[in-house]
Formats: sequence, structure tokens, C-alpha cells
Amino acid sequence: MTNLFNFMGGEKGVWKIEIIKPIIGETIPNAARLEIIEGKIEHPAHHWILRGVTSFERYVTTNEKKALKAIQPPLNRPEAICAALIPIKKMPAWWELAPDERRRIFEAQSKHIEIGMKYLPAVARKLFHCREIGEHFDFLTWFEFAPEHAEAFEELLVFLRNSEEWTYVEREVDIRLSR
Amino acid sequence: MTNLFNFMGGEKGVWKIEIIKPIIGETIPNAARLEIIEGKIEHPAHHWILRGVTSFERYVTTNEKKALKAIQPPLNRPEAICAALIPIKKMPAWWELAPDERRRIFEAQSKHIEIGMKYLPAVARKLFHCREIGEHFDFLTWFEFAPEHAEAFEELLVFLRNSEEWTYVEREVDIRLSR
Repeated sequence: MTNLFNFMGGEKGVWKIEIIKPIIGETIPNAARLEIIEGKIEHPAHHWILRGVTSFERYVTTNEKKALKAIQPPLNRPEAICAALIPIKKMPAWWELAPDERRRIFEAQSKHIEIGMKYLPAVARKLFHCREIGEHFDFLTWFEFAPEHAEAFEELLVFLRNSEEWTYVEREVDIRLSR
Repeated sequence: MTNLFNFMGGEKGVWKIEIIKPIIGETIPNAARLEIIEGKIEHPAHHWILRGVTSFERYVTTNEKKALKAIQPPLNRPEAICAALIPIKKMPAWWELAPDERRRIFEAQSKHIEIGMKYLPAVARKLFHCREIGEHFDFLTWFEFAPEHAEAFEELLVFLRNSEEWTYVEREVDIRLSR
């Protein structure tokens, strides 16, 4: 399972956890640092662990994919010392929708991709899927940005959280980090 | 992980394995019977194990979903004593396509749903996803039908295997069973 990533909250890791804020529903326990390890871990030592896999795209069109590819920054840029890890769980009603309806809410109504594009290349982003591997959350999104883009990042979150798509979110935690 | 299913080839199980036929690429070892167990198994005893999860739909439209729901038979019908388990792996080129392009090949060109619909309710079908859980195959499809529909089932496979979608299949094994 080379595409599996473990986000482990505990005493170790290059990322210092600044704050863990529940946005919708139950929060997760506090921890001092975050360690990110790729691959399967047999006996992890941690306070909590959030696991996700990288996977193929679910909603983006061919043209959107091209546009994103042209502008998306890599992770680990030296200046990007701020990060956010945002686990999300959507309601059963979301998953019962056919994919064309999910896409309509995701982009035509909520402009998820269009909004995200506005904050590129300032805010680097990577999505991990958890639903299929039996985790509590459906997605983990990892964001990295420089301190001067922290305000822009807050704005991005406000837009997304006010979208129709977000009415389907039943649990969301906002974990902020720095290194 | 209540949505995880284990298809275990070995000496046990209600399903007798009639034949294991490699269609594309490497086959899997022979076994006498197939046992299907739901949930996580700590120490499985088996010759081989294929694991998959049930998940939300990837390509079907709202209308297709409604049409399928109206006509889809359940599994375990008393007369459906024939079964097929068909593990498939698609090429990296497939997964690199954006979902709109995958959908175009899947339905507009290959008529995957339209063809499948013609054989309902005779052939019951259930899809399991494996790619996200780090398995060798991407999908397992389970089919159940009565002996008088065995010929129709072969016809269904011929149509699908001759489709454009199938040019993206890099491994396929056809496991036939009876009970």
C-alpha cells in the first residue's frame, strides 16, 4: 500500500500543532506534534492517527485537470511553513447521490474547483481519501502556505464552508500547524 | 470496516470453484471452494484472498441509477446457483484520465451500463472496489444467475470485453462457481 499516508498526532514530527478546532461535530484529542508517515505501520505509537490514500480524481473535468496541473505548486516549499490538516465527513445523503448530482453541487453550485484555483499557487493542497479504507472521516485535505498567505487561506475556507456542498458535511475538524 | 468483503479461495465455503481462467495477464492459484466473509479478518486460513469494499457510484447518472434500482435483483436468489467472480486491474493510463473522460469511454463509447441493463434481472451483480485498499486488482465483480441464463451471461462478457473500456484492462481473471 504505497499510496497510504498516516497523519499521527503525538510527541514527534516536524510539524508543531498550533490548535485543533472543531468546526462541525466532535473534535479530536490534542497533541503536541504531527508526524506524517507513508505506508503501512504495524505498531504505531501516537495519540491519534488519521489515515488516507491518494487516489484518482472524482469530479474534475479534463480541462480543469489541465488548468490545475499548470498552476499547482509542490508541497515542501521552504517558505510554506504554515499548514492545515482538515478531516471531513459527509452525510450519507451525499454518498447516496449519483456522481452527476455530486458534481453539480461540487462545482456548478459550490464552485469548489473555481474557488480553490483562485488561491493557487499560494496555497498548496493535497487530498487523501479515507472512506474506502474504513476510517471515521471521508477525506483529509492537507494545505501548505507561507505566513503572508495565511489571510488568503482563511478566505478560501470561508467561501467553501458557505457553499451548498458544505451543507452535506456532518463532521469537520481544523488542525493548524507550523514548522 | 463493515463494508469490507473477503473472497477466500481454499477448502471451505458454500461456493465450489469450477474453473479459474486467466483472461488477460497472470492468473491466480487454484482452489476447491470459495468462502465470502464480511469485515476484517485477523488470521485468515486460505490459499488466496481477494478483498474489496462496497462504495458509492463513480460514473452512473441520476437517471441511470433510478433505472438500475428499479430492475436490479438481490443476491442469493434460490435459483441463482451459478456465479462468477471477475477481478480486474486497469492500466495507469485509465486512472490518469479525468473522470469526464473515463465516463465517456465507460458509457458513451463502451455502453457499460446499457449492456449490463439488458441482462437484468437475470444476472445479479455486485461491484467491490480494491484499488484504494492497496490490493493487486482494482475491482472485483460478483455475478449470480440461474443455469438457464448462463448463455446470456457469456454474451454479456463478450460485449464488455470487446468494448473500448476493456482496452484499458491489463489484468483479468474469470473465476466460475456453483453451489
